[in-house]
Parts: sequence; C-alpha cells; structure tokens
Amino acid sequence: MTRRVALLAHEGFPDRAKTAVGVLRYADYETVAVLDREIAEADPDARVRDYLDDVPDAPIVGRAADAPEFDALVVGVAPIGGGLDASWRPDLRYALESGADLVSGLHYFLSEDEQLAALAAEHDCDIWDVRRPPDDLTVAEGVARDLDSEVVLTVGTDCSTGKMTTTRELYEEAVDRGVDAAFVPTGQTGIVIENWGIPVDRTVSDFTAGAVERMLRERADHDYLFVEGQGSITHPAYSAVTCGILHGAAPDALVLCHAAGRESIHSYESYAIPPASRVANLYEDLAEAVSPTEVVAGALNTHGLDESAAREALDDYEAQLRVPVADPIRQGPGDLLEAVLE
Amino acid sequence: MTRRVALLAHEGFPDRAKTAVGVLRYADYETVAVLDREIAEADPDARVRDYLDDVPDAPIVGRAADAPEFDALVVGVAPIGGGLDASWRPDLRYALESGADLVSGLHYFLSEDEQLAALAAEHDCDIWDVRRPPDDLTVAEGVARDLDSEVVLTVGTDCSTGKMTTTRELYEEAVDRGVDAAFVPTGQTGIVIENWGIPVDRTVSDFTAGAVERMLRERADHDYLFVEGQGSITHPAYSAVTCGILHGAAPDALVLCHAAGRESIHSYESYAIPPASRVANLYEDLAEAVSPTEVVAGALNTHGLDESAAREALDDYEAQLRVPVADPIRQGPGDLLEAVLE
Repeated sequence: MTRRVALLAHEGFPDRAKTAVGVLRYADYETVAVLDREIAEADPDARVRDYLDDVPDAPIVGRAADAPEFDALVVGVAPIGGGLDASWRPDLRYALESGADLVSGLHYFLSEDEQLAALAAEHDCDIWDVRRPPDDLTVAEGVARDLDSEVVLTVGTDCSTGKMTTTRELYEEAVDRGVDAAFVPTGQTGIVIENWGIPVDRTVSDFTAGAVERMLRERADHDYLFVEGQGSITHPAYSAVTCGILHGAAPDALVLCHAAGRESIHSYESYAIPPASRVANLYEDLAEAVSPTEVVAGALNTHGLDESAAREALDDYEAQLRVPVADPIRQGPGDLLEAVLE
Repeated sequence: MTRRVALLAHEGFPDRAKTAVGVLRYADYETVAVLDREIAEADPDARVRDYLDDVPDAPIVGRAADAPEFDALVVGVAPIGGGLDASWRPDLRYALESGADLVSGLHYFLSEDEQLAALAAEHDCDIWDVRRPPDDLTVAEGVARDLDSEVVLTVGTDCSTGKMTTTRELYEEAVDRGVDAAFVPTGQTGIVIENWGIPVDRTVSDFTAGAVERMLRERADHDYLFVEGQGSITHPAYSAVTCGILHGAAPDALVLCHAAGRESIHSYESYAIPPASRVANLYEDLAEAVSPTEVVAGALNTHGLDESAAREALDDYEAQLRVPVADPIRQGPGDLLEAVLE
C-alpha cells in the first residue's frame, strides 16, 4: 500500500524545499498536501502544479491540520545548519497526535526531542531521523577504485545546483534503457526516496570517504553506480564533505552541476563561484591525486529562465566545459546519459 | 603541581606513537615511564633517550604495573581507525585501580566502555576522551578570512609527516622571539599538549570547517595563529578533514610538511604520493577557490637519515618547492619561521 505523506515546506516551496520537490518527483509515495503557510495565506486555493509542472498535483495548505489524512509528515525543507524551526512544532505535534509518523532529514534529531519523542511513544508513531548515520562506520580502505562497477558522481559549483536531481534522472533513464544501474544517495532527500543510504554530511569527518566506499561496496553487483554528490569543492563551509565523497567514490566519470546565472555561493554571497571550467579542472586535479577521472558532461539548472535565455546559458556552459551539457529537467537526461555511457 | 604521566605506546614507540612523542617533547607533564612491551621485552633496561635525544628521559616498561607511580595514563598511540586494542585493557584497568586518570585520543571512547567506566567510578578517576567534540558545533560562517590575525596552517603530502611537530615548533619559536602567537590544535596530541582544542577529525563532517573557524575566533586576539593541519589532500581516506581545515582556517600562509623518502601513502601503499610541487599547487588551487594563500615554506622530516642524506633530501625538497625548507627538529624552526613572518 502506498504511504500517504504530507510535505512540510514552510516559506520554502518549491525553490528552497529540495526534499519536498525530490519526494514529489521521484519517491513512491502519494503526496496528499504540501505545507507552506506563506503560499497558502496568499492563495488559499494554491496547488503544487501552480509551481511545478512535472509532478503529481496536490493542494498547498498552511498547516498540517488543514491537510487530507496522511500516514507520515516529511520535513521537506533543509535550512542552513539543519536546526528545528520552533514555528514547525504545531504541525509536528498535530501529525503525531493524529497517528502519523515523522520523517526528517534535519541535523537536529526529532527522535531526541523530549516533547516529540513523548508524543510519538504516546501515539505509537515512528520518528525516522534520516540523517542519523550507522554507528559502525570506519575510515575508507581505499578500495572503491578497484570495484568493477562504473562509478558516475555528480559534483557542483555550489550546493543546491541540482546534483540529486541530475543523479536521479541519469539513474532512472539508465534503468529505462536496460542498463544494470543503482542509485547511491548521500543526502536526506535521496535517502528518503531510495529508503536506503548513509547521510554523508552527518558522519564523523574521518569516516566521510569510508561511508561512501561502504555504500558502493553494497551496490557493487551493478554495472553502473550513480552517486549523488554534495556541496562544492569551492564552498567555504561544505567542501570537506564534497572532498570526502570525491575520494571515497573514486568515480570513473564526473558530471558537473551548475545553476544558470549563479555567481556567488548560496547564502555565502561574498564568496564568488569561480568560472565553471576552473571548477571542473579543480575537481579533476583533486581527484587525480587519489584516482584520476574526468568531467564528461555538464548539467545546468535553468529553472526560471525562458527558452531563449536557457538556450543561451546552455551554449555558454558548453563553451566553458567543452563536453555535452543539458538541463536534465527541461530537456531530459538522454544526452547527458549518452555522454556518461560512452 | 606537575602531573606525572605514563605513556602507553605498545609496539609503537617512537615512530608510530605520535601522541607519546608529542607529550614528551612539548607538554607540561612529567613522564615517569613509556609503556612498550616489545621494546621492554627485548631490553629490560631500555630508556626513552635510547630512541629520542631531545626529550626528558624515562624508563621504557612492559606494563603499567612496572611503571613508577603516576597520576594519569595517556594512550600515546593512534592506530588506524582509532579502535581500542584489547591487549591494552590490563594496563588501563591497572591505572584506574591504582587511582590514576585515563587520557585517550582514540575514536573509541573509553568513558563509554562499560568495564572502564565502572572502574573509574569505583576508584573516583576521570576519563578524558580528548577526541570527543563539543555538542554545539555548527557549519562555518565563512568569516575566518576576515580575522585580523595572520593564520599559518601546516599541510602535508601524507598523514604522519610532522604537521603537529612543525606547528608546535613554529609557535614556540615565535613566542620565544616575542611574537604574540597562539597554537591551534586540531588533533588529539595537540589537544593533550595545549589542554584546549577541538578534534576536527571527529566532528560531524558538515561542521569540519566550522570547528576550525570557531577555534580561530576564540584565539583571534593574537597576532599570529599557528594551526595544526591534518591528513593530506592526496589521502584516499582522510582528505575530507584536510579540505575542511584548509577552507575553515582560510590561512594567510601554508607550510608543506613531507617525510623524506616517503613515496606512497602511509598504510595505503598502493597510493603514490604526487611530487611535492604538485601537491603544493593543489593546496594553493583548492584554497584559492575560497580564500587565496601560498606555500611559503617546506618542513621535511629527515628522521633516520644521516647528515649527508638529510642535506641531499633537503636540497631536493627546496628545488621542488622553491621556498625555504628545513627539518624543524634537526635544524630548528628558525628559518621556517622567518619565511612565515616575512
């Protein structure tokens, strides 16, 4: 039976609600409502399809109590730092009191919150903190480069450039074409979708590469492994995770993800993003010190641009990278996948 | 009153017992004995000065029960992975039963070990797990580059190349010369010596850079901050931590540490270390994407080489890096410090 979920995305839907959008687009759940009080206040009849045209429709409501019946409330926004916004508590409490589970990718573990844990126990509900890593992680052994699988890793010029989406689109397209492939999630959205995976940004820092290596070994019976990247090697806060994934995965091919028009690091606006060609070279040079690889394709997020502006941005991106580029949502992932499979 | 310590370094003294050697060399403790059963079995009269000539002397004994009275037992070896070697338990138990504290930098927390925790409670002893990070770390804000202090970071071609030693020597020499300086430790040895600091390899990976930034801010009233680096950007398992420190510290100058003659990654022998000049460029390029810096000096560990072989290795290292180089133990840190202060 398909689980019915409500997606909490207050003040963030859709652009700052990566997990909500990822679940709508890829997960095997039935979304009964998106919670965004800002949108619902402005337009009580707002619907998901007003904002995204490639996903199942659902109403956008202001609070959990206004949503149709659901089995789980998924926290679908990922604020910087991963804390719990106190204003979300009424929705979380309502969910538990009505017998629904909580699914959360916050750094702050809801299952360790006294109030929520007590309510969950009282109403016999589960709290799944997706970002809690296994207890038995270790340092990498350095064996990922010896696996028989072809490993494809998405990397970015910044966070929130479409790495999860690109990885998922490539994986689904590969499976559709009969390729024996697996999806390797490294962040909360991918893990919720796949119902498996390790939240690499939450491991002990010494075990970052080891966590990725372990996932690859668990899926090494597939011909192709599509690994979701995180952050960016140019990011003042998140580059450690990016570097650990790059070396832990020892990928055979990289796909560089960029958001069209973005010139500075998201939420760190005083940090400029270097030209895409320089970022690509930096990933290749950094990888080469451990296990050589190449950027074989570029994924450009052109969301919000009209057709001609998108075309121009894509041409510019291709000129910089000198490899095939596409927006996997606007144009589909076919061309990118062909570059990867070559 | 100076605390009397015994240093557990079984089968590792001195070359694989970084913490023991660091404490002997730099900490304000009185070392009453080093525990190394391999050495003690081969030579019951062995002493520290048989192995190291620049530190206070002490006997080397096979077990804690054979050591003179001490106030704390310090675990002075750091095995790959940071686990507890079961064969150390008799020494740890003896220490607690005789009323001594335990100090440990293992990933495995001794204070959470049922047997040891019970003994510590029974005998009113403390267990200090140096590698336990604070609970309230966060992501970096990206402000380290704006601090007034000059930040000097040691980086390496591998782990165990002398980064802690070089950082400490530079710091002590700077203080001797009247420079207003602070030492910023990032690993267990430095933290034990300084009695302050955050074990950066044990933080949540997303908070790696943030942990370094926080330490810098706490010491930002000094003119110079000497930050202990970790691992290497060329390391298949530990590069995430290295990258997080590089971007979190936003250093004004780098000192590249290398072990003479080392051609492959320690314990990962199938991984070749790239030429030092290429590693230096890689650190500079990776830093530049966030905050530009330069390798201004090279520290070479020539331990075990005779004078002429050391000279040759230093000349070769200098020719590669084209900056002043020295072995800070063999030659003293003066030349390196001058390159840093320039």
